Amino acid sequence: MSQPVDSAVDAVRTYIAQHRAAFLDDLVEWLRIPSVSARPDHAPDVRRSADWLAAKLKETGFPTAEVWQTPGAPAVYAEWPSADPDAPTVLVYGHHDVQPAAREDGWDSEPFEPVVRGNRLYARGAADDKGQVFFHTLGVRAHLATTGRTTPGVHLKLLIEGEEESGSPHFRALVEQHADRLAADAVIVSDTGMWSEDTPTVCTGMRGLAECEIRLHGPDQDIHSGSFGGAVPNPATAAARLVAALHDEHARVAIPGFYDGVVELTDRERELFAELPFDEQRWLNTARSHGTLGEAGYSTLERIWARPTAEVNGIGGGYQGPGSKTIIPSSAMVKLSFRLVAGQDPEHVQKAVRAWVPGQLPEGIRCELSFSPATRPCLTPLDHPALQSVVRAMGRAFETPVRFTREGGSGPAADLQDVLGAPVLFLGISVPSDGWHAPNEKVELDLLLKGVETSAYLWGDLAEHWRHAP
Amino acid sequence: MSQPVDSAVDAVRTYIAQHRAAFLDDLVEWLRIPSVSARPDHAPDVRRSADWLAAKLKETGFPTAEVWQTPGAPAVYAEWPSADPDAPTVLVYGHHDVQPAAREDGWDSEPFEPVVRGNRLYARGAADDKGQVFFHTLGVRAHLATTGRTTPGVHLKLLIEGEEESGSPHFRALVEQHADRLAADAVIVSDTGMWSEDTPTVCTGMRGLAECEIRLHGPDQDIHSGSFGGAVPNPATAAARLVAALHDEHARVAIPGFYDGVVELTDRERELFAELPFDEQRWLNTARSHGTLGEAGYSTLERIWARPTAEVNGIGGGYQGPGSKTIIPSSAMVKLSFRLVAGQDPEHVQKAVRAWVPGQLPEGIRCELSFSPATRPCLTPLDHPALQSVVRAMGRAFETPVRFTREGGSGPAADLQDVLGAPVLFLGISVPSDGWHAPNEKVELDLLLKGVETSAYLWGDLAEHWRHAP
Repeated sequence: MSQPVDSAVDAVRTYIAQHRAAFLDDLVEWLRIPSVSARPDHAPDVRRSADWLAAKLKETGFPTAEVWQTPGAPAVYAEWPSADPDAPTVLVYGHHDVQPAAREDGWDSEPFEPVVRGNRLYARGAADDKGQVFFHTLGVRAHLATTGRTTPGVHLKLLIEGEEESGSPHFRALVEQHADRLAADAVIVSDTGMWSEDTPTVCTGMRGLAECEIRLHGPDQDIHSGSFGGAVPNPATAAARLVAALHDEHARVAIPGFYDGVVELTDRERELFAELPFDEQRWLNTARSHGTLGEAGYSTLERIWARPTAEVNGIGGGYQGPGSKTIIPSSAMVKLSFRLVAGQDPEHVQKAVRAWVPGQLPEGIRCELSFSPATRPCLTPLDHPALQSVVRAMGRAFETPVRFTREGGSGPAADLQDVLGAPVLFLGISVPSDGWHAPNEKVELDLLLKGVETSAYLWGDLAEHWRHAP
Repeated sequence: MSQPVDSAVDAVRTYIAQHRAAFLDDLVEWLRIPSVSARPDHAPDVRRSADWLAAKLKETGFPTAEVWQTPGAPAVYAEWPSADPDAPTVLVYGHHDVQPAAREDGWDSEPFEPVVRGNRLYARGAADDKGQVFFHTLGVRAHLATTGRTTPGVHLKLLIEGEEESGSPHFRALVEQHADRLAADAVIVSDTGMWSEDTPTVCTGMRGLAECEIRLHGPDQDIHSGSFGGAVPNPATAAARLVAALHDEHARVAIPGFYDGVVELTDRERELFAELPFDEQRWLNTARSHGTLGEAGYSTLERIWARPTAEVNGIGGGYQGPGSKTIIPSSAMVKLSFRLVAGQDPEHVQKAVRAWVPGQLPEGIRCELSFSPATRPCLTPLDHPALQSVVRAMGRAFETPVRFTREGGSGPAADLQDVLGAPVLFLGISVPSDGWHAPNEKVELDLLLKGVETSAYLWGDLAEHWRHAP
């Protein structure tokens, strides 16, 4: 199944080998900028990171590279039109901000003084997400150099935001504001990972997210559990019974209407998931969990990738300190998050939750519900021509069959899908051991260069197999 | 049904009227001592309160009145033997410490500067419990003066503790240490209340208490609800399902063995409860609750007085702050309290809980249970001769039928019952509006003097109708 090594591959690899050192020097320079969006004292660094990237993209050859201000941290936008007006337009998404990091968190070296140990580059942001943004710069240059083009095979756009690690609070508004310039036939997100070093994979979807806080009110104040216990409704008990009622005996979500519209897994997709070398015990180690539990009739991978969920993120009520306090609490709260899959409408789910909760409560317990802004799910059809191109490009680079995954989490990519009306694809080369958000974050240099190589093949493959559909 | 006013009653009332002013002056002096046991800076006041009471009891005529030290605040013990060696021995229990109070909490006058407004004496401790301890001093003197005795009709003992408002941490040890001197045929607790001003009542039992904290452990750390949600057990959900499983659809506690030994209400007791002028809406107002909920087949009063319960005092797990955090929490906790009724053994209940909890949890959730020291329930048989005496004494004082209540809460009285092997009776004249633990605590002066009068009749009635059973 491995791709034959052809002369184009030889050319790309030679080009990359020639430019590897300079590419890594540049990346190291960028990684030295502690662009921690969560910390106000690092705001100048986040701005410096944006400026650095915009300058570097110009140097790479992008005719347009701009820093886009937001009410928070700036994003970087770059554009390199193809000479072929009918070429498809591809928007690459990533981010230049990073998670906080300090040596004393358990780093073996300074998080913002990148260092190569073995075949790994250690630095905060090495994998999440500067390394994965940056491989496209050498990728597009390799694409041009090895094909003799002066412009990319596709209209190439980049949007690299600066607040992803802070929850992207201004991202949707930014995309809406610049929707015309960002218009694309497909979005390629380079902020994800692969199954493992040995198993290159393409992610075909992310779950959506609807979050809800439910506050339950019982007695007007905490009351004595001796004087009144056993005779009045207890909001902590009501909260517990509400949570217990969330799932039926098959661990299916029991809220009527919750599953409305869910796109069921096809047999083909289930086969593709089953092809992955999944080791449940290893996965449990990663999860730090001591057991599996989920919807009956689905495998663990199907549960986290392709099935919607209801999870309790927090529950609280009454006295939680040391010792005891014999009260019936006045109130209790539950924070729920619902992961959504393709076909589910977050607003419909919110309505279903709103309609369901009051009926679960005894008389004398009043509820208040509030929802955070929801994130839609996204799913790329397996037969989408752009997805086929990504798979072919990765296959050429990795010389091994590319498999399919999905992502259980949710992300700002869904905003791009929503606002731009374009399918979202995922091209990431990070592996689970890269330590996102953790001490000693690193990127595997071999994989990073495979990312460059994939990028180099991708734009030509897209140009060859896909046209802009007006 | 009202008692005929006889010459003995006349004599007692005359005596009380003559000594009313001095009695109230003394009580006011005691109430000026801010014996707040919960506040270390008031420790000298609690000692002063004990010294004051011991001196006053000597002045009253008690041959023995001692301050008993504990590792915390001191108690006061006094003894006045009867000349009749075969007279029964009665131990009166109360406490001389008070709840914290400050003018700015909403008091209309200084809490430790007692003031009479209308027919009420306002001060912290006026009802809980100094007023109710103190009525016995004038009561026993009226008993002697109007019967021509030089010693009480019973062997009278008083134990007035100094840490009741702080959970009586050293009380049981104190009772065990002095068990020989405290030995009694009955314990009379004067630290409770009556149904209302118009309805004098005797409490015939208190519920016991077993408290349990359950900690549930899931993943070794909080994990991402996107990456893992829907596929691993969530300890917050497990805690909720555990709480939900505590009760069946009839609101009965579903733990096997929980009801073992429960002394069921007799038809006569249910009739007695039903005789009380219970107004559910008024009771709900007191409870500050907006609905009733409890075990099927029992009235509200039966539920709070005579049925065991399982209540959640606290529940917690995961993120409870503002906004959202998409985690599966690593752990969750539940604090439960079980009120117990006569016939239930706290240790048996603890064992039943321990045996039940693990079976409620999914694989991958580990539990830790810890129990606080339990309090046993107590129940006085309706036909107990000492109870009959209390009822007759109250009936003479109040000139209205005395009805029966129980108490839903639990208290140190159970330790006296346990250690001394004596039945516990309750003689209290406080009413719900007295504001225990609240601002503007007060005692109704008319009721306080009815307490004196009841005490005056009680010792003679006991001597007449009951003998020490060796």
